[in-house]
Amino acid sequence: MAPERRNPKRPFHPRSHQPPPGLWLYGLHAVRAALENPARKVHRLVLTERGVEELGKKAVGRVRHEIASMDAIGKLLPPGAVHQGVALNCDKLSARSLEDVLPEKTGKRRVVLILDQITDPHNAGAILRSAAAFGVDAVVVQDRHAPPESGVLAKAASGALDVVPIATVVNIARTLELLGEAEFWRVALAGDGDQPLREAVSGGDVALVLGSEGSGVRRLVRERCDTSATIPISGQAESLNVSNAAAVALYEVRR
Amino acid sequence: MAPERRNPKRPFHPRSHQPPPGLWLYGLHAVRAALENPARKVHRLVLTERGVEELGKKAVGRVRHEIASMDAIGKLLPPGAVHQGVALNCDKLSARSLEDVLPEKTGKRRVVLILDQITDPHNAGAILRSAAAFGVDAVVVQDRHAPPESGVLAKAASGALDVVPIATVVNIARTLELLGEAEFWRVALAGDGDQPLREAVSGGDVALVLGSEGSGVRRLVRERCDTSATIPISGQAESLNVSNAAAVALYEVRR
Repeated sequence: MAPERRNPKRPFHPRSHQPPPGLWLYGLHAVRAALENPARKVHRLVLTERGVEELGKKAVGRVRHEIASMDAIGKLLPPGAVHQGVALNCDKLSARSLEDVLPEKTGKRRVVLILDQITDPHNAGAILRSAAAFGVDAVVVQDRHAPPESGVLAKAASGALDVVPIATVVNIARTLELLGEAEFWRVALAGDGDQPLREAVSGGDVALVLGSEGSGVRRLVRERCDTSATIPISGQAESLNVSNAAAVALYEVRR
Repeated sequence: MAPERRNPKRPFHPRSHQPPPGLWLYGLHAVRAALENPARKVHRLVLTERGVEELGKKAVGRVRHEIASMDAIGKLLPPGAVHQGVALNCDKLSARSLEDVLPEKTGKRRVVLILDQITDPHNAGAILRSAAAFGVDAVVVQDRHAPPESGVLAKAASGALDVVPIATVVNIARTLELLGEAEFWRVALAGDGDQPLREAVSGGDVALVLGSEGSGVRRLVRERCDTSATIPISGQAESLNVSNAAAVALYEVRR
């Protein structure tokens, strides 16, 4: 049932008197990056006097803000959130396609990182942070199995959520076909890969696929890749944490 | 005041009627590794029927165990613990010295990883997992600032807590002096390091020092190193997550 329009002359904003929707981001790096991202729609900043100093008056001036105590800020957030005296209410980022974010081919090697059903926010956040650090051109996630954009993810990403171009796709296998047509060398990272990482990513534009901790890259996705790569490890552990594996792979790609 | 001895003929165990002290470990990898570690004193295993199948009857038979539901196991543990149907009550590991754990010099490169005030259990656990994966010979922590041995750390370590030799020392700077006398090449990892990682760790026994996310390797510790090394990153992020930096550094050392 549609809400009643009380004043037909006034434009109707059904949510204008509700509390802001969306997402609480927290922590200095995450909030600073969100404030600096023109694509991020921000609503309300709650922070300590020290938080104002840390972010700078210019950044803080971009949005309606209010001073609060550490405790009061903590009450806005999930228990245990390490907020460093800053919390920002904002909208989630709009979904973009791979075509939206992928740069044109130039002399510089292009790197696309594809997350196949990695949903843990700590891992996904740390992967975004490494993607920013190693200059990844696009991170691809699948719409139905993307890590939820959350304060936890943004904190783990340490600002990278608002820096790294993220593309949301319906079908990762289909995306890999398109990347193959665009002459990307498609590499699935796997414990039982065909080649050592070093040989698998030796040159050219590359699309690296990472699977979830439990089950790895799915078979149908792996079949769309040109090769699979293994990080050589000794027998004392079965595998690396997925964000650590991502960092090692990106280091090798940019080496 | 000493408790009263009711039966002087029976040996006195002041804690024998108390609930087991110590630590709850959980998750298949962490519990399996603890059960396989002869140095780990175990008290009580609580698990589902499925947990028995996963661990195997032989491993389960090592310790007093009882079958319980997923929910009942969850109630023994911190909220949100991903226990996979297994929880083990055990003692913490006994502290060992670097002399206890460091292998003799042989043809194979020895690698020591030193954690300078890294206390976050997720990061410390992931670092132990990478240390196991890349065959680190010893991980050194400082007694007063060691990451607390906890279920969270053990879960993040995915079994590596019971595999990697861990040495607890009083003074990291002094430990670096001793490692220098033993002809280890001492490298502090730092965002503003003197050399690229690749050049800094090019050969011989190596001691790698990692600092905390916030403040890095402390000055007095860094001064005891032979060099400092930087992982080359592009301008989009200030730094890597410390466990990701550790994985990259160990990959380069073992490359």
